[in-house]
Amino acid sequence: MSHTIKEKTKLLARVRRIKGQVEAIERALEAELGCADVLMLVASVRGAVNGLTVELMEDHIRNHVVDPAHEPDPERAKGAAELIDVVRTYLK
Amino acid sequence: MSHTIKEKTKLLARVRRIKGQVEAIERALEAELGCADVLMLVASVRGAVNGLTVELMEDHIRNHVVDPAHEPDPERAKGAAELIDVVRTYLK
Amino acid sequence: MSHTIKEKTKLLARVRRIKGQVEAIERALEAELGCADVLMLVASVRGAVNGLTVELMEDHIRNHVVDPAHEPDPERAKGAAELIDVVRTYLK
Amino acid sequence: MSHTIKEKTKLLARVRRIKGQVEAIERALEAELGCADVLMLVASVRGAVNGLTVELMEDHIRNHVVDPAHEPDPERAKGAAELIDVVRTYLK
Repeated sequence: MSHTIKEKTKLLARVRRIKGQVEAIERALEAELGCADVLMLVASVRGAVNGLTVELMEDHIRNHVVDPAHEPDPERAKGAAELIDVVRTYLK
Repeated sequence: MSHTIKEKTKLLARVRRIKGQVEAIERALEAELGCADVLMLVASVRGAVNGLTVELMEDHIRNHVVDPAHEPDPERAKGAAELIDVVRTYLK
Repeated sequence: MSHTIKEKTKLLARVRRIKGQVEAIERALEAELGCADVLMLVASVRGAVNGLTVELMEDHIRNHVVDPAHEPDPERAKGAAELIDVVRTYLK
Repeated sequence: MSHTIKEKTKLLARVRRIKGQVEAIERALEAELGCADVLMLVASVRGAVNGLTVELMEDHIRNHVVDPAHEPDPERAKGAAELIDVVRTYLK
């Protein structure tokens, strides 16, 4: 299995929130809201997609590469923790 | 009105395609697909959201600021055409 | 001329600051600083380059397309002001 | 030591190329080149900074987390190889 049950629940909640935000853009276009307002809705989807990406990468590192919390080799644990920080800095 | 009918139809098609892509991520998580596969689906949403952003900005420039195709002042027409190129380069 | 004297001075100061940040990355690599530290320096260059991009786009809109502060047509002035907001939201 | 000698040489060459590109922006501003031309130079710096980021992250994963080429655990080797692909997709 790829994610723990707890992670899966959190990820699904994020994805459904993004779907709701995309539906809000659809309604805004149908209601002929101004371009600038639609663009602000799109910016919020972009932010939410970046947040989802960070969470998925972090889960991938912890579950399939090295989990800093359970790795016995201290060098690898440090390397993985730093990597998670870097991913957060770059993608958020 | 904020967009022409033709633009609105194109934008709505793009947004509905993005909704379909988000639903594919939802199904992938429910089916417990691997993280790396889910991340590739998320990358395609990110690309589609950037494409939608470029189209909305371009429509905004043409409809609410300066349309290079119909602007009588040649300096402004050139400035707006360059701006559209720059937006495409930076956001795609 | 493409920028006012005041804008040019500000832009040159930004670019020289970015050059200094790139030189700091060079020294960090020569001194064999850890990857994670170097990546944080690179993240700050990325942020500074985005800031420079926003300033250049804003100057371009004001000087070569529509300056919201001096445009007699209120629709265009509003459209250009919204565009500057959108550019700031997306690129910062 | 944080990078191999070979990696360090490649990274330093990339950083010096970026410094050269930043100096080209400086000269373009001093020569009062048009905004749109300066913005295209800035876009090329942005691309080069993203390339440097990918290379540094990849080196970090290989040297400090898991090197897919030398990892005895096949699950971890696969996880790290997928992570490197994902980083390339998202940051390039």
